[in-house]
Amino acid sequence: MENQFGFYVLMNTSYDEALITVTNALKAEGFGVLTRIDVHTTMKEKLGADFRLYTILGACNPPLAYRALSADPEVGLMLPCNVTVESTDSGGSIVRIINPAAMFTIGTLGDNPVLVDVASEARARLERVAQSLKSL
Amino acid sequence: MENQFGFYVLMNTSYDEALITVTNALKAEGFGVLTRIDVHTTMKEKLGADFRLYTILGACNPPLAYRALSADPEVGLMLPCNVTVESTDSGGSIVRIINPAAMFTIGTLGDNPVLVDVASEARARLERVAQSLKSL
Repeated sequence: MENQFGFYVLMNTSYDEALITVTNALKAEGFGVLTRIDVHTTMKEKLGADFRLYTILGACNPPLAYRALSADPEVGLMLPCNVTVESTDSGGSIVRIINPAAMFTIGTLGDNPVLVDVASEARARLERVAQSLKSL
Repeated sequence: MENQFGFYVLMNTSYDEALITVTNALKAEGFGVLTRIDVHTTMKEKLGADFRLYTILGACNPPLAYRALSADPEVGLMLPCNVTVESTDSGGSIVRIINPAAMFTIGTLGDNPVLVDVASEARARLERVAQSLKSL
């Protein structure tokens, strides 16, 4: 499970509803959304290309991020934790949530016990977010 | 080198100057800055905590991102490419740039030849960004 890249949820709700639901579910586990990239808008503006509705949210749990960055500022290359919301052809949504524990298998981050602990807690919280979305 | 987590540059320029210089260097390689998190401001606002000047930039090369997301939408969990700028005690700056090729060693992304190719090109471009900063 630690090597699982991310958590995936197929939702019956529309893309717009999913964005709101996901944001609230993240908030319930202490994650605020610090950044948002509307991929379809960016692709249209920069390339004139069509892309289905797809957003990348950058979620951050401030106490965990503070502990991690204080332990090793290199961690900033992995923050915030990404959550993507994508529309499906059937009018539903796919939600993907990064597994921080898998991210920390890169480089030497996993050698720092503080980072391992923080990644484990972040992973547990984000897994609960995924579970809460699955139960809707 | 493919497993190198990121590229690091110690700059003699101030934090504010480094942010401008890095943004321009990214632009020269086709990367726009789509997101910016001022970590010190966020930590002060959310936790009342002091943190040294530290910014996380989310850099994106639209043609490469489009190719990658079209090949596998799961890639959004890794985008944009992070670049961090941090002040040092001596008045200089540390710049860290993610190595996309290392990111793609997580999960099964590395099994997709299109993604391997995109990661390789992104890595080459970001390595040139790092080299251009080192030569200043």
